[in-house]
Amino acid sequence: MMKIALAQHNYIIGDFSGNKSRIIESINLAIEQGADVVVFSELAVCGYPPADLLEFDSFIINCKEAIENIASHCIGIAAIVGAPSFNPKLKGKRLFNSAYVLKDGKIDSLYHKGLLPDYDVFDEYRYFEPATEFNIIELNGVKIALTVCEDLWNMNQSPMYSNSPMEQLSKQNPDIIINISASPFSYDHAIERKTTMCANALHYNIPLINVNQVGAHTELLFDGGSLVINSRGGVVAELSFFNEDFRVFDMDEVDNLPEYSFSKTQSKEEKCALIYNALIMGIKDYFRKLGFQKAILGLSGGLDSALVLALAVEALGNDNVWAVLMPGPYSSEHSVDDAICIANNLNVKYDIIPINDTYNILIKTLAPNFNGTSFGIAEENLQARARAIILMGLSNKFGNVLLNTSNKSEAAVGYGTLYGDMCGGLSVIGDVYKTEVYELAEFINGEKEIIPRNTILKPPSAELRPNQKDSDSLPEYDVLDQILRHYIEDRMSKDEIVSLGFDKDVVSKAVHLVNINEYKRYQTAPVLRISGKAFGIGRRMPIVARYSFYQKKLNCLY
Amino acid sequence: MMKIALAQHNYIIGDFSGNKSRIIESINLAIEQGADVVVFSELAVCGYPPADLLEFDSFIINCKEAIENIASHCIGIAAIVGAPSFNPKLKGKRLFNSAYVLKDGKIDSLYHKGLLPDYDVFDEYRYFEPATEFNIIELNGVKIALTVCEDLWNMNQSPMYSNSPMEQLSKQNPDIIINISASPFSYDHAIERKTTMCANALHYNIPLINVNQVGAHTELLFDGGSLVINSRGGVVAELSFFNEDFRVFDMDEVDNLPEYSFSKTQSKEEKCALIYNALIMGIKDYFRKLGFQKAILGLSGGLDSALVLALAVEALGNDNVWAVLMPGPYSSEHSVDDAICIANNLNVKYDIIPINDTYNILIKTLAPNFNGTSFGIAEENLQARARAIILMGLSNKFGNVLLNTSNKSEAAVGYGTLYGDMCGGLSVIGDVYKTEVYELAEFINGEKEIIPRNTILKPPSAELRPNQKDSDSLPEYDVLDQILRHYIEDRMSKDEIVSLGFDKDVVSKAVHLVNINEYKRYQTAPVLRISGKAFGIGRRMPIVARYSFYQKKLNCLY
Repeated sequence: MMKIALAQHNYIIGDFSGNKSRIIESINLAIEQGADVVVFSELAVCGYPPADLLEFDSFIINCKEAIENIASHCIGIAAIVGAPSFNPKLKGKRLFNSAYVLKDGKIDSLYHKGLLPDYDVFDEYRYFEPATEFNIIELNGVKIALTVCEDLWNMNQSPMYSNSPMEQLSKQNPDIIINISASPFSYDHAIERKTTMCANALHYNIPLINVNQVGAHTELLFDGGSLVINSRGGVVAELSFFNEDFRVFDMDEVDNLPEYSFSKTQSKEEKCALIYNALIMGIKDYFRKLGFQKAILGLSGGLDSALVLALAVEALGNDNVWAVLMPGPYSSEHSVDDAICIANNLNVKYDIIPINDTYNILIKTLAPNFNGTSFGIAEENLQARARAIILMGLSNKFGNVLLNTSNKSEAAVGYGTLYGDMCGGLSVIGDVYKTEVYELAEFINGEKEIIPRNTILKPPSAELRPNQKDSDSLPEYDVLDQILRHYIEDRMSKDEIVSLGFDKDVVSKAVHLVNINEYKRYQTAPVLRISGKAFGIGRRMPIVARYSFYQKKLNCLY
Repeated sequence: MMKIALAQHNYIIGDFSGNKSRIIESINLAIEQGADVVVFSELAVCGYPPADLLEFDSFIINCKEAIENIASHCIGIAAIVGAPSFNPKLKGKRLFNSAYVLKDGKIDSLYHKGLLPDYDVFDEYRYFEPATEFNIIELNGVKIALTVCEDLWNMNQSPMYSNSPMEQLSKQNPDIIINISASPFSYDHAIERKTTMCANALHYNIPLINVNQVGAHTELLFDGGSLVINSRGGVVAELSFFNEDFRVFDMDEVDNLPEYSFSKTQSKEEKCALIYNALIMGIKDYFRKLGFQKAILGLSGGLDSALVLALAVEALGNDNVWAVLMPGPYSSEHSVDDAICIANNLNVKYDIIPINDTYNILIKTLAPNFNGTSFGIAEENLQARARAIILMGLSNKFGNVLLNTSNKSEAAVGYGTLYGDMCGGLSVIGDVYKTEVYELAEFINGEKEIIPRNTILKPPSAELRPNQKDSDSLPEYDVLDQILRHYIEDRMSKDEIVSLGFDKDVVSKAVHLVNINEYKRYQTAPVLRISGKAFGIGRRMPIVARYSFYQKKLNCLY
């Protein structure tokens, strides 16, 4: 048959020269290793997702120029490269999401994606016209069913699409399926992807090559793990996860290679390892691709900031992370001790900058207006915002990017201060529920205690009023997180959740809190997405709305 | 023929009981006035756009229940009501965007939208399957081509869609076109809408009824202006703009009614009046629909906050708006005077709360770290954030929603402090360029000086360092705004803009500033949308990306 190279790269959106050199290097390497074809991922030339940059004609022209330049290097080899292309017809959307086939120094042919995902984080109908006709391509006598990502995701009982590119292609008797993709990570998606790809190979009874993108683009994480699958639907090779990779396979041998077995379930440890690696990559790429080296964060002595510190140190190096301890009037004694302990465990520079003077001046400044009112949310928020203003001052002065340390449970119920602890350039654990924060902490402490035991064991507290605990105003996290998952991930109604056995008042309260806090989440940092439904671009809820459960008037925004 | 009632309402998203009562009231009124059919807007039952609430089965079931209840009131009359419906087929998206025809106390038939907008603020492919077959409905012997909004927007030379519902419908010889819509306002869109509707009536040579939604849903504004058009393509009636309305027309008379003439161009005054009314409605509905009465804002003595104050007072009443003057170390003397002057002109309560003590404590608190560095962005931002913390303290304590006062030019180039003057629950003029801010100020001062002349005439300044002016770091606004419009609205590249005659360095700088400030805009309040391309949900640009013009490393986020 043929030798196929899989080139799994970490692109930068819009970095035509960088992406192009990476692609050309791999073409040369593939030639060296005797490959007949080298395959790159979906929209490789511009990186995925380019979002509204696709609306600039100049952006599409840049893509085309890069493709032509890459084609000129394809002598004695063919390359399959993803890029957007103009729709030549006057009808329909102006672009296609295409796979270019390059050979003999020029563009040989073009295949357009037929199934365009438009759900969760995907907006492909916003830009692309779906192809409706599909033809196999032939390279070195091998008939290839060339598909782009979603084109193969139409296998289950209630498919989202009315047509099936592979059904059309299969009638032309292809010898192999090649799928170029940009399939975003979530901790349960690698298994789904493998299952879907294997089902295709098995169903059509031919081998399958899948080349995925790797790396982070702001909130979206891509885990790589490109696949080679034999004609019996067995995985025979899997490229690196969370790293670039390049490998060549002789397709004649594929059916003789040993099969990997893989489990469709996941242990807690496996899930933690995936999330851990994904978050590390997310932090790393956010900084590297924006041209930053150094981070700063507020270290409270609590578990969330301890976890983010550990992740940041792993991603950026201990020299590049600065922890700031900002005890306030209601901070407990152990907070500073616990914070110093983890800073020392990770060998990280820290400063102690108490907020008491700032808080007191603010209280004095506002006294003419606050007089006669009692201590409440306003005073609590002043403390959180005093901390933010100090962190942002240091960030602005020294160029360290502030990492946000809110978890998904807090973000869901609005347990955080807008412009206070909700500040930051990147939300590291905003898609990690509090119960998962505990799991990750245990995972990190697996070999050696990095996060102090006391930080893990003490009851969570914002420490914004005397003896405050999260559980004063929120349900216990093990219950809350289950309810949140049903509401956010499963889109169940309040009644449906109650019917599972949860307490009606607790469910009502949790759901109500999620609804009335859409305005807060609207204004927060991008969240590294590790689940199937993260806050941010993949979840679009109205701010001004009555939810069925939304009866009482709000007393207070923020 | 028949008598048709047009019911143009201001719905609340998800407020099934409220929307339903409104619809039933209009049905009863239409019966009283002898109408044969009463027509409501697109997705009337749940309000448009419901966004991801559509992903909850319970939401769709609530819509269906409301429709059935409404149907029971349709005795002796037919009603056409927009609502989502489940797609009964196993293939394709799970919903349709439908027009229900209700009569004889029950659901008579259903028509599904064929052309689904998915650009700018629209995400309809995210939720809906497009209909591909279209059949006219017959009521009282009249053959109706029933269409939903975008279904009629397929008339120009390079249409976005490959099929045309009206072409199919026209083959069935309809007597009239009815179009139910939720067509968002921008200051040039009412003319486009009228032109498109007239072109349809003229092309098919039959009268046309268009019923639009009115009111604001967070950032999206709907201006109403529902239309009755005769079979020659002439407008014979237009319902209210920015208000609910209800009118009945005898379709036999429509071709005999006098035609409105309308101009396809717009005077500066007409544009200002539209923007002014749209912003007032936007503020009003944001507060009313969330259940708030009172606003607060920082009044600097500059033009932006003066304009927002005038708009807020018109929308909410002078008793409900609280202005806070927060002079700082670099505030000019005239700032406080100018601010007091407009507060007095509008008879608004104001407080003067200087930030100097807070700023000084922050400088002292940060001194151990800041020592040896020179005054810069960090110190400027401390001032802006000190103001924000005071405003948010008052907001939290007293329940006044903070109005953001940044204009579109500032938001575009990042000339503002994140978590400082970029705070607020709602950005009132975030889609109004600075040059348009001047136009609106003159418009408001039309009859009587409300905004002090000095506020209009003095050079714009953030007053965060001695003798600072906006023009120290930015091009003059009359040039900047033109460049920004070409880049943001027209999606032109840097080179294309330069080719229009703008200075290359100025264009490079402006475009560069827009690109590197995506992260700031990601974290700001929803912006009332008055143009064809506003920041927010309709403009989705990556944060981590290399733009072609993006070469130098950033030194500093925020």
